[in-house]
Amino acid sequence: MTEASLPIWLDGQILPAAKARIDPADRGFLLGDGVFETMRVAGGALCHFTRHMDRLVHGAAVLHMPPPDRVALAAGVESLLAACALGSGSLRLTLTRGTGPRGLLPPAHVRPTCLITATATTPPATPVRLVMATHRRDAGSVLSRIKSLNYLPSILARMEAAAMGADDALLLNHAGHVAETSASTLIACLGGQPVTPPISDGALPGTVRGVLVDAGMVRVGRITVSALLQAEALFTCNSLGLREVAGLDGCAVARRPDLLAALRACAWR
Amino acid sequence: MTEASLPIWLDGQILPAAKARIDPADRGFLLGDGVFETMRVAGGALCHFTRHMDRLVHGAAVLHMPPPDRVALAAGVESLLAACALGSGSLRLTLTRGTGPRGLLPPAHVRPTCLITATATTPPATPVRLVMATHRRDAGSVLSRIKSLNYLPSILARMEAAAMGADDALLLNHAGHVAETSASTLIACLGGQPVTPPISDGALPGTVRGVLVDAGMVRVGRITVSALLQAEALFTCNSLGLREVAGLDGCAVARRPDLLAALRACAWR
Repeated sequence: MTEASLPIWLDGQILPAAKARIDPADRGFLLGDGVFETMRVAGGALCHFTRHMDRLVHGAAVLHMPPPDRVALAAGVESLLAACALGSGSLRLTLTRGTGPRGLLPPAHVRPTCLITATATTPPATPVRLVMATHRRDAGSVLSRIKSLNYLPSILARMEAAAMGADDALLLNHAGHVAETSASTLIACLGGQPVTPPISDGALPGTVRGVLVDAGMVRVGRITVSALLQAEALFTCNSLGLREVAGLDGCAVARRPDLLAALRACAWR
Repeated sequence: MTEASLPIWLDGQILPAAKARIDPADRGFLLGDGVFETMRVAGGALCHFTRHMDRLVHGAAVLHMPPPDRVALAAGVESLLAACALGSGSLRLTLTRGTGPRGLLPPAHVRPTCLITATATTPPATPVRLVMATHRRDAGSVLSRIKSLNYLPSILARMEAAAMGADDALLLNHAGHVAETSASTLIACLGGQPVTPPISDGALPGTVRGVLVDAGMVRVGRITVSALLQAEALFTCNSLGLREVAGLDGCAVARRPDLLAALRACAWR
């Protein structure tokens, strides 16, 4: 199957993508009112599925959405994997607050919209060139701690990076400390120890970040810009992969291939 | 026609709402990647249409979207007004970056999605009870200066207000100064003079705010919380109406019916 011909799962049904209809009154479309997860598929199975569901459920609770039905979502994910015969790639699960009348307040009875789509391609695993974005991450907002559909800050930062010939953008918070990249956790090797910024500094609680921290492989701690510039190595990671940073604002960054291998092995053992 | 049966305009076509399809790959739905305008209809005509189009064009430019076609949008708006036989109510124009492949970067060739919907009802003009939201407005972000589809901060603030029995939420910025309400400009009467917070404090450049400021009716200036609590009167305004504030955090607010009438007359003369 080609990329465009992969079927999708929408509210319980497997459909050809061209037949699937999102209602123009969907609050996801009108207001970015929802959450999502992007999950890696390897060997025909989902990686870290429970962590993704935990984060989705937490995000829905932060938005005061009805609790997602984990059993139904697991069944949906399994049926789409089977329908796509997907060995490797990724799934994206989008959960919105569904349709509603004009205005900000949700309707009394929310019927969420759930869309699951598949992609057979995987992002490159090659080293990343980063630039510091002018856009700052709002570490004080509860929305920086969930994976919501309000993705414009990251989109603008990524476009800024692309315009400068870089692969990704590093975002600082308003206090000037490292938060994350446009769609990845940042890890810096400082004094021999891999460190990643705390949630309170604006880092999204990434699933692979959680795996590495829980395994004791990566320590959580503030990363100042001066520490960043002296790091022995830098890495980015998200659910789809873990990559070395080759350059930051046009300057070469030191490399630690041993650490890259160790981090990857820990993330997807 | 009943509310639900009003037709909509989607990418150049007038359609029954039930027949209109948003593509599941639309970046508006997946990432909140777009801008919108809500415009008042009175006497069968749109109020302040040029100001709305100016803001839409500016917002699209901030997001690096293709410049909207003002002539086509004006024609779309006119044709929907006629198809709905709408004498009073409002139109909402939503412009997204259209469909794209997986990931944050837009495709090389963007084909925006444009949706225009109509509503015959108008919001109440009765006095508003406000509460201060815990959510803060990110005054430092360029996204606070455009009307983007990333509306979760306002949704959360409005839900917080509703849970406390209030009509709307007042948002402060991270410095603790007044920014705006969840979907309205705030105006405070201070020393006999109506004042509204500057854009740099997190106020969205509202269309009616612009009308009132350009007419010299309202001055732009910082509003601290202590000034707010001593105001001689408070008002909220957006494109759909201008209302008195009756209470703030459960305390009655002084009223100036003469000023309410004068502001309304200036806003929609």
